[in-house]
Amino acid sequence: MARKEKLIITIAPTGNVPTKKMNPNIPVTTDEIVEDIIKCRKLGAAIAHIHVRDEKGEPTCDREIYKEILDKLEEKNSDIITQLSTGARGGGNTAEWRGQMLDLNTEMASLTTGSSNFATKVNANSFNLIKELADKMYTNNIKPELEAFDLGMIDNAKLLVKEGVLKEPLHFNLVMHVKGSIRGTPRNLLHMVESLPKGSTFTVSGIGPSQVPMLTMSMLMGGHTRTGLEDTILYDKGTIGTNAMLVERIVRLAKEIGREIATPDEARKILGL
Amino acid sequence: MARKEKLIITIAPTGNVPTKKMNPNIPVTTDEIVEDIIKCRKLGAAIAHIHVRDEKGEPTCDREIYKEILDKLEEKNSDIITQLSTGARGGGNTAEWRGQMLDLNTEMASLTTGSSNFATKVNANSFNLIKELADKMYTNNIKPELEAFDLGMIDNAKLLVKEGVLKEPLHFNLVMHVKGSIRGTPRNLLHMVESLPKGSTFTVSGIGPSQVPMLTMSMLMGGHTRTGLEDTILYDKGTIGTNAMLVERIVRLAKEIGREIATPDEARKILGL
Repeated sequence: MARKEKLIITIAPTGNVPTKKMNPNIPVTTDEIVEDIIKCRKLGAAIAHIHVRDEKGEPTCDREIYKEILDKLEEKNSDIITQLSTGARGGGNTAEWRGQMLDLNTEMASLTTGSSNFATKVNANSFNLIKELADKMYTNNIKPELEAFDLGMIDNAKLLVKEGVLKEPLHFNLVMHVKGSIRGTPRNLLHMVESLPKGSTFTVSGIGPSQVPMLTMSMLMGGHTRTGLEDTILYDKGTIGTNAMLVERIVRLAKEIGREIATPDEARKILGL
Repeated sequence: MARKEKLIITIAPTGNVPTKKMNPNIPVTTDEIVEDIIKCRKLGAAIAHIHVRDEKGEPTCDREIYKEILDKLEEKNSDIITQLSTGARGGGNTAEWRGQMLDLNTEMASLTTGSSNFATKVNANSFNLIKELADKMYTNNIKPELEAFDLGMIDNAKLLVKEGVLKEPLHFNLVMHVKGSIRGTPRNLLHMVESLPKGSTFTVSGIGPSQVPMLTMSMLMGGHTRTGLEDTILYDKGTIGTNAMLVERIVRLAKEIGREIATPDEARKILGL
């Protein structure tokens, strides 16, 4: 976690919540998603955190739609690391539904290690569900990115290491400022980072107005950064964002702070993929 | 929250998890529960945090069983403050089920302000459910004790004040070391306490081995203490506890630390009941 380590930028282009009504730049179809990923890869993103939508634009875990995106990225010879979401807002809440895409050819997937609230529902991830998803990931040689929406989820990850469910070194995404979960304050982020198991890598997501302070603080502490319209539909107060604009800002900040940008291959080494 | 303020001791005699197989001293029937509450009141407890069991010993929210306990306490002229649990392990998860006892004659009830994990299930409390339970409490002039199992739940409480759902001053129980939620470390407890809204009162629960360190630290920081077999079935490594033993230890610690014990009437003043 040295400050001089290269910075991995993850692009989260779509998410489950944003709609084209909220921001017309949200990529929703597989073509739109692939186009934004390719664009962001050129700008500096090394990982694509992917959610998919069904024909009505609703979040889903549909394996075939994930496959379409992976196939299209392969067609375009993209070297970006793909990270498929197994999150709790993908239309169903069994491990079978949420992990249906884990036999696809992907290097990473997301895994939330506990429960918290979203604005309108529970971010429900029981220990049993976590174990089932983790097992499927390791069986398929997929590295989980552990999504921590609160402190307890870091502690849960430590318990799951002891129980043999998770394998070190762990990689976390500290998800700050989701309504219903931990707030995105510097004090909270510092506490989260200090609570990580030794030898872990981490990235930070900053939802809405916490985007710039949380990601900048992560860079300063040797962490990595996730950005994208999934996390903030605004570039700034009053300015509708695009995925490219959000990546470009991170690249400019990283330059000023003195963090070089990691290529996908460099990210693979940092994360032990 | 001055250190010199009198110490409120809450007794949580039963909970949802312990069984007589784990510890034969667990009070399960309404007579047993009332007997332990009366005993602990004499030893210094000012509040009784009450869970009830059905005829099979399973956790329930059954209004009639709660009523039986309140009636029996009244028969015995007990002045203890009653706090009825609306927790997520009472056999059902609708606001209607979990809040069915809130029309009874009680001064307090528990209200968890977010979601986390228990060992075997999700501690599921959506914002909608929280609002429904809170409304019913305020309508019936019941003060909620906000159960915070992680940092985000304190932040949620602040949001709920802004939204007009909760009324200040707030009273929290910081629940430390439940498997699936925040760990019971001094660093975490300090962070929780420092995150409370100004003017709040708080008590601390320490599950299992975190019982003594967490409750002692709360006393030092001007907080209050909850103890009882709900939180730890052992008095100490290898020593099966009783509710009375657990209260007696807190009273001895409080004496050494210099906190006088609050009577129920003094607790009413401190909590603004």
